[in-house]
Amino acid sequence: MNSISDQLADQYKKELLYNVIPFWTKYSTDNEHGGYYTCLDRRGMVYDTDKFVWLHGRQVWMFSTLYNTVLKDDNWLAMAEHGARFLEKHGRDRMGNWYFSLDRSGNPLIAPYNIFSDCFVAMAFSQLSKATGNDRYASLSVNTFNNILSRSSNPKGSYNKAVSGSRSLKGFSLPMILCNLTLEMEHLLEKDTVDKTINKCIHEVMELFYDKESGVIRENINSDGSFSDTFEGRLVNPGHGIEAMWFIMELAARTDNKELAEKASGITLDILEYSWDREFGGIYYFMDVMGKPLQQLEWDQKLWWVHFEALVSLIKGFQYTGNKRCLEWFYKVHEYTWSRFPDPEYGEWFGYLNRRGEVLLSLKGGKWKGCFHIPRGLYQVWKTLEKIKGQA
Amino acid sequence: MNSISDQLADQYKKELLYNVIPFWTKYSTDNEHGGYYTCLDRRGMVYDTDKFVWLHGRQVWMFSTLYNTVLKDDNWLAMAEHGARFLEKHGRDRMGNWYFSLDRSGNPLIAPYNIFSDCFVAMAFSQLSKATGNDRYASLSVNTFNNILSRSSNPKGSYNKAVSGSRSLKGFSLPMILCNLTLEMEHLLEKDTVDKTINKCIHEVMELFYDKESGVIRENINSDGSFSDTFEGRLVNPGHGIEAMWFIMELAARTDNKELAEKASGITLDILEYSWDREFGGIYYFMDVMGKPLQQLEWDQKLWWVHFEALVSLIKGFQYTGNKRCLEWFYKVHEYTWSRFPDPEYGEWFGYLNRRGEVLLSLKGGKWKGCFHIPRGLYQVWKTLEKIKGQA
Repeated sequence: MNSISDQLADQYKKELLYNVIPFWTKYSTDNEHGGYYTCLDRRGMVYDTDKFVWLHGRQVWMFSTLYNTVLKDDNWLAMAEHGARFLEKHGRDRMGNWYFSLDRSGNPLIAPYNIFSDCFVAMAFSQLSKATGNDRYASLSVNTFNNILSRSSNPKGSYNKAVSGSRSLKGFSLPMILCNLTLEMEHLLEKDTVDKTINKCIHEVMELFYDKESGVIRENINSDGSFSDTFEGRLVNPGHGIEAMWFIMELAARTDNKELAEKASGITLDILEYSWDREFGGIYYFMDVMGKPLQQLEWDQKLWWVHFEALVSLIKGFQYTGNKRCLEWFYKVHEYTWSRFPDPEYGEWFGYLNRRGEVLLSLKGGKWKGCFHIPRGLYQVWKTLEKIKGQA
Repeated sequence: MNSISDQLADQYKKELLYNVIPFWTKYSTDNEHGGYYTCLDRRGMVYDTDKFVWLHGRQVWMFSTLYNTVLKDDNWLAMAEHGARFLEKHGRDRMGNWYFSLDRSGNPLIAPYNIFSDCFVAMAFSQLSKATGNDRYASLSVNTFNNILSRSSNPKGSYNKAVSGSRSLKGFSLPMILCNLTLEMEHLLEKDTVDKTINKCIHEVMELFYDKESGVIRENINSDGSFSDTFEGRLVNPGHGIEAMWFIMELAARTDNKELAEKASGITLDILEYSWDREFGGIYYFMDVMGKPLQQLEWDQKLWWVHFEALVSLIKGFQYTGNKRCLEWFYKVHEYTWSRFPDPEYGEWFGYLNRRGEVLLSLKGGKWKGCFHIPRGLYQVWKTLEKIKGQA
């Protein structure tokens, strides 16, 4: 008889390969103009044809990763290259910055104000270069990565509305994503760049953004690392903090740093305790570290990616530390997530639930939800469960 | 015995003068650095000290208006001038554009990307010049008004992230607010400017943004006035449309244009029928005119200003047209609003309810809610009920 972890690994694997990935393969390709539709309604029908550069990067990355790590399926590679062609042809301005969005045929709509377009494009072409051995993809990835580093002190550039010199806050998103991106691109970068970037990111995430007192990660800090008692400084995005912790655990595993893995899994548990809705279950989207009123009207909603990132961090926390609390929380979040987010009728998963866990928006994809967190999460949990065979 | 409308007029008047206005008088003044705190929690305690230019404009306007039209109370005038001093001293950049936000002592935080700062400052100094006869306030108001008109083709200026020439949409907010602002400033402007601006705004609101087919007002249209099947083009903000209709009714009353008043009150009713939540009651915050999934996660929430604007438009609709449906809807919205938004324990009104009408955020003021929609709505309904004495 199979152990629970075998059965669970199989559940995550099957959901990935027989439900989620086929949904995107079937509905998201624009065969006329190239690229991907991501605005798919509950049934998979296209309800808007705008194209989002960062969601293209994520989808190219997802299909390339599956090709590189699960199965050399030519359809997956073709799917990745389909998105990559659209990105290469239409995605950049003359300076090599990646636009935020394009219209259906690739005309730019929204300027490159958002550096996460660049982050996910770099990640995409890195995996695609691995899949194809194509050097053009490799240089595109490296050039974009270098551009991100050069823009990192003011990622929004001229679109930054903060008056300079007035209140200089540093955001968590970029150091967090660089933890993951640098590891993803390790095969393309100089060892020295990798080590420096990783050390800097680990320091920033674990020493500056992590707040010992509250036990959670702050979204914004003063440039000297101190707490800013402002809307931005008080903001906690539990999903972000939890996601960052599995990036940190992977970095810890790279150098067999058990202490760092322990710390990251401990923070995961602390954030979960802090942000779990004790009345209706699920993880809040936003909180204020001082319990003050938030600006975010969606603060109490339950989002797909938050719950998936928690599943990944918890199972990796168990893998790297053996802490049983990680496993207990994993089962709790697993039960919550699987009983509310999947759509048994039309496939794929809902993204947006209200506080009570009821569907708030029935879309399968949009401007912010694409082919990424659910398949990546299913993949990560599946693979981790295989590694801890018999223990969970 | 008093008629129902007498009793109701009294209810609105008392709520304004003995609950809402005293709350702001008591809690919002910063006696040390000047200006107003607007981030007030449920009890009126300051939870953040940032200062918002547009909310300053609105509060200066509110106290000046009460002074000009209700009672020559020196405390009200002092309150208005207290905010005006802070605005004059700290509010503008060198070009005369009004910042979006300032820190407690008046250092600019967020650049003048938002033209509604300018709109509400112009409105504020217009009423304050009436209250004081001070010409400096009058010129400040007129200069700001002229600057708004000169910026109207691209209100966000260099902060506009849309790639130029790609998809040129025209937003509803500015023509809508100009309907009201021009009338507010009529005593300071050349007759020709007033007539031209008003005629242009009425045309834009009633011919371009109003969509005959769906019966509602669109938030964004193509620059040639046609429908844009995009997230922005499909967006309906029922509260915005309803609010604009009472501005239009006032403009109609100015030239005794009964046909225009009929049309505006009819549109108010149509938008209400369209946006009323038939399951839980209340008016939705955002809708998609084609019923497609929205980007706005807060779409189903019930907001204070939406319900107050509906009360004003409905009672004015009855005043100007005698249509009994306006009155029926007025009582329905009145009942919903008064039974959920007021805070009997700590005074003033809640701003943000979830779809079920439960309090989502207990703040009394923040970055978007200040001393404006509730007192202005109470004032407008009170005064209108007095005019229709015995009919309602």
